[in-house]
Amino acid sequence: MHKPLILVTNDDGVYAPGIRALHEAVSSLGEAVIVAPERDNSAVSHSLTMNRPLRVVRLDEHIHTIDGTPTDCVTIAINKILHRRPDLLVSGINPGANLGDDISYSGTVSAAIEGTMYDIPSLAFSLGGSPPFDFEVAAAVAWKLASMALAMHLPPKSLLNINIPPLSAGKIGGIRFTRQGRRLYQDAIQETFDPWGRKHYWIGGGTVHWSGGDDTDEQAVRNGFISVTPIQLDLTNHDGLAYLERQWQM
Amino acid sequence: MHKPLILVTNDDGVYAPGIRALHEAVSSLGEAVIVAPERDNSAVSHSLTMNRPLRVVRLDEHIHTIDGTPTDCVTIAINKILHRRPDLLVSGINPGANLGDDISYSGTVSAAIEGTMYDIPSLAFSLGGSPPFDFEVAAAVAWKLASMALAMHLPPKSLLNINIPPLSAGKIGGIRFTRQGRRLYQDAIQETFDPWGRKHYWIGGGTVHWSGGDDTDEQAVRNGFISVTPIQLDLTNHDGLAYLERQWQM
Repeated sequence: MHKPLILVTNDDGVYAPGIRALHEAVSSLGEAVIVAPERDNSAVSHSLTMNRPLRVVRLDEHIHTIDGTPTDCVTIAINKILHRRPDLLVSGINPGANLGDDISYSGTVSAAIEGTMYDIPSLAFSLGGSPPFDFEVAAAVAWKLASMALAMHLPPKSLLNINIPPLSAGKIGGIRFTRQGRRLYQDAIQETFDPWGRKHYWIGGGTVHWSGGDDTDEQAVRNGFISVTPIQLDLTNHDGLAYLERQWQM
Repeated sequence: MHKPLILVTNDDGVYAPGIRALHEAVSSLGEAVIVAPERDNSAVSHSLTMNRPLRVVRLDEHIHTIDGTPTDCVTIAINKILHRRPDLLVSGINPGANLGDDISYSGTVSAAIEGTMYDIPSLAFSLGGSPPFDFEVAAAVAWKLASMALAMHLPPKSLLNINIPPLSAGKIGGIRFTRQGRRLYQDAIQETFDPWGRKHYWIGGGTVHWSGGDDTDEQAVRNGFISVTPIQLDLTNHDGLAYLERQWQM
């Protein structure tokens, strides 16, 4: 059997400690190649960069960087850098959780979405909590789940969004397969005034509630479990489609 | 019965012809209030602006503009501008289709996602084709679908992503309820060299294929039909979740 080829990427850039921990963790499972943004892309759009050329810089045999987005990195890695189709894509480890509705805005997850579009098993890893982040336990979790993903099938046209609680190894309760939770804000817009007395609104603050029970991603992490959520590319509400065809006569 | 309150927004900014056509079209159905970005936000992230205060400018009784993203506009409109909860949200009309995988990157659709998070029936409208865009037919379609959405229920936790072919009224084949298509690229990365002879990659060109049959959004528009796709907020692959719980023993 050939050695698995593993593409490693993220949205925080090639020098982020999270990707280095992830690369080291999966290196024992196969040939692990980093293709990651040159710098932090957390605030950048997920989309492809099409308005300018992109440059690949090879830092060493297994580390490449691109002056683009996570999505750019994945598509260029697969089409132009790697000598063959990768067996696995791992993205992260993001410092900070990617739960519930945040998934749509996450660069870490968008890299895994791009991998899934190429039908490559793709895992997105995020570590909950706040700075300073210690990636040691999360890297061990990433190793375990990456080895599972090499041995088992993922659900079709789906990636796994994995969130790890910021706990020591002994305190983590294990793995929970979860559904995406929903975040509800209350009083999350503050009013403020500029020096000329004009009212402005500042989005933030207030209280955040999560809906759903113990089977959601957010609840799992809150309760000390590793959350593994299968996220599908197809956004169609198929039940809703049948309903529309039946009821919306025009 | 009270007059319906309709929130009108977009991602191209308050002065775009598409939103003006949409506003005029739905004004006969109720009180239609525009809350839209000050300027074109097509290339901006969908996320909430949380790092600075936002200013609302009231252009007239029914037109407000905000120096933020489509998502900012929707949340501030609902929480701070409108005198009550809107009965309907309409976003667009976008010049250019939003089909298949493009949905994830669309500001037009992201405004409708935000409305759906507040459980407000939300419709995203896009007009296919290329410039110059004529919004007359699309506005009539928007009027018809908005009046349907006020009379009927939408599928739960879902928005409708509506794409209109760039045809005259007589040539449009009618409405098709569709699923999200998938876009496949081939040879979509070109190689180019900078003045110093260094290789760069430019994403674009090549050929685009669409997978799926006549029941997809892309095929419907290509065949001259109005495509209506129910898009759900929950990205969880629920079948995949059951599979993981059964098969991934750890």
